[in-house]
Amino acid sequence: MSGTEADRAFMRTALALAARGLGNTWPNPAVGCVLVSAEGRIVGRGWTQPGGRPHAERRALDQAGALARGATAYVTLEPCAHYGKTPPCAEGLISAGVARVVSALTDPDPRVAGRGHAMLRDAGIAVTEGVLADAARALNAGFLKRVEQGLPFVTLKLATTIDGRIATASGESRWITGPEARRAVHAMRMGHDAVMVGSGTALADDPDLTVRDMGAPQQPVRIVIDSLLRHSPDSRLGRSAAAAPVWMLHGQDAPFAAQDGWRATGARLLPVAMAGGHLDLRAALRALAEAGLTRIFCEGGADLAAALLRAGLVDELVHFGAGALIGAEGRAALGPMGLQALAEAPRLQRISQDSVGADVVTRWHCS
Amino acid sequence: MSGTEADRAFMRTALALAARGLGNTWPNPAVGCVLVSAEGRIVGRGWTQPGGRPHAERRALDQAGALARGATAYVTLEPCAHYGKTPPCAEGLISAGVARVVSALTDPDPRVAGRGHAMLRDAGIAVTEGVLADAARALNAGFLKRVEQGLPFVTLKLATTIDGRIATASGESRWITGPEARRAVHAMRMGHDAVMVGSGTALADDPDLTVRDMGAPQQPVRIVIDSLLRHSPDSRLGRSAAAAPVWMLHGQDAPFAAQDGWRATGARLLPVAMAGGHLDLRAALRALAEAGLTRIFCEGGADLAAALLRAGLVDELVHFGAGALIGAEGRAALGPMGLQALAEAPRLQRISQDSVGADVVTRWHCS
Repeated sequence: MSGTEADRAFMRTALALAARGLGNTWPNPAVGCVLVSAEGRIVGRGWTQPGGRPHAERRALDQAGALARGATAYVTLEPCAHYGKTPPCAEGLISAGVARVVSALTDPDPRVAGRGHAMLRDAGIAVTEGVLADAARALNAGFLKRVEQGLPFVTLKLATTIDGRIATASGESRWITGPEARRAVHAMRMGHDAVMVGSGTALADDPDLTVRDMGAPQQPVRIVIDSLLRHSPDSRLGRSAAAAPVWMLHGQDAPFAAQDGWRATGARLLPVAMAGGHLDLRAALRALAEAGLTRIFCEGGADLAAALLRAGLVDELVHFGAGALIGAEGRAALGPMGLQALAEAPRLQRISQDSVGADVVTRWHCS
Repeated sequence: MSGTEADRAFMRTALALAARGLGNTWPNPAVGCVLVSAEGRIVGRGWTQPGGRPHAERRALDQAGALARGATAYVTLEPCAHYGKTPPCAEGLISAGVARVVSALTDPDPRVAGRGHAMLRDAGIAVTEGVLADAARALNAGFLKRVEQGLPFVTLKLATTIDGRIATASGESRWITGPEARRAVHAMRMGHDAVMVGSGTALADDPDLTVRDMGAPQQPVRIVIDSLLRHSPDSRLGRSAAAAPVWMLHGQDAPFAAQDGWRATGARLLPVAMAGGHLDLRAALRALAEAGLTRIFCEGGADLAAALLRAGLVDELVHFGAGALIGAEGRAALGPMGLQALAEAPRLQRISQDSVGADVVTRWHCS
């Protein structure tokens, strides 16, 4: 394991600060920074601010002021080395007189990719790399996947009865889970760059997909996968598109009138190639990554969920389980998966298990 | 709360001993007894032995011998007061010279029903009642339900994927859950008097429903709900019926040849009234309670599970959840429930949540 026990403890603090930025720093990574004096006192704390800047290091240096001199900087990602809208953080750390930098990960962004660490070392600063690298990689999974694969990290949410139903036969679904679980869903929306649903869910539920009562620094982008733009611009999403972003992903055959209607609401239209009568979901996610998104929270419906799973595009599944039973007539949580044999069924690894109000919540990693 | 802190601590020990008898004492309750000397040392421990006797008190008294004199007896159920195949335990405690008796519950059996406690008090023994009464009631739920309502306690097991499926479309179900969960199922079978399945499951899986590799003191009764006796006597259950009990619950229309065939295996046939084209499940469970069963572990299938739930005959649901996904074509864990509205859906209260191997297991109380 890299670093001393104290290094790992301060890095854990930096990771906790970094997590505050998840969902509101895209396309930038959510970074945390802690500055620790030679006496072991924290003299500066920072995390990437909403919109992606100021960067974490800049915030921590500003807070520390003269106390940064001789301090150790703990950063969850390699400090940037390129001149963008602001001078690079590596330069900021150097000119503040930081004595040592402890980082968790090398930034895979080709504009950085080790040059941040090198710039620090060239200035005579001691650099320790790879401290809590696994935790930092997990935290930055969205940013890393976008840079490395050109795809966003996708979290799929399922909220079901014990028997895997999401609604009665007639479509009644309010509410399967309790208020605490629904509040947890809002917190999860806030930790993602975007919330995504299929057109069926949009049509059936007329959702607004906003984060409510959470003090969210910014609303997630609201995305509908809607090849023919069947969802009406005169919907909750359409009527609120000027206030918070709505992106409609559609195919070439979406009627021009619907395209015009959605454009008039202020929504952004992203045309995507079709494959087998549906939007090509891999192409759709590539377009979303191209547009800057790193973390997407998919809330259904059953067919979109199954299609994403079939295509291997889901990274994590969050399952809310309510202590209720609906029976075989109820609506299934997942659409058809087309399995020929049980051995083909996706197998997931448990990440965590918890309770939330009367319900249970389990997180699973999709390999 | 009744009793001192020390009383409750010793009663917890007695309850842990009592639990060892669950599944192998029917129609008797599973009782635990701890004898504690005046110095606070445990001098005797006992629990109801397989088959229902010797009783817990008798075992503890025999272990303590002369040390029982002046001791306090902790019993999870009121000592019996009636002469059956053995003299009553209340008399045994009196003649051993026990100074005090602490009990958790009054025995609702009309042959006892307070007379055990009275017999002890009449002999000058101090009696404290109601210590950890709730825990004792939960442990003895099967015995109490049989005595009080003429019905057994029913635990329903469901083992599903995250999306609530128990098999692929073609019926492939081996295995959804992992070996640790399957072993936990065997332990649960052992803690019940009987294991029960519907005829569809019997026909599809040809199960033997025994407890394996657990050192079980006796095998649970194996029950099939099979109105027309469609399951073949030349099945795993039929061929093993001489070695461990098999009870076939059937309707009046079950072909005589099938009845004869099953009788020839050594299985017990219990005719039950029909209701709406199916066995009347309440009548079936009444017959099973009448025959002495207190705790039944139902392992499906989907239609029997739904029918039991619809009829309000399930006391506890144990859900094993595997990190797998099968999709909408898969077989549902529950058959039709006939709900008209979400408000009619059975709501369950979470008892516990745990992991077992790669899977999760959640226990729910059906109110």
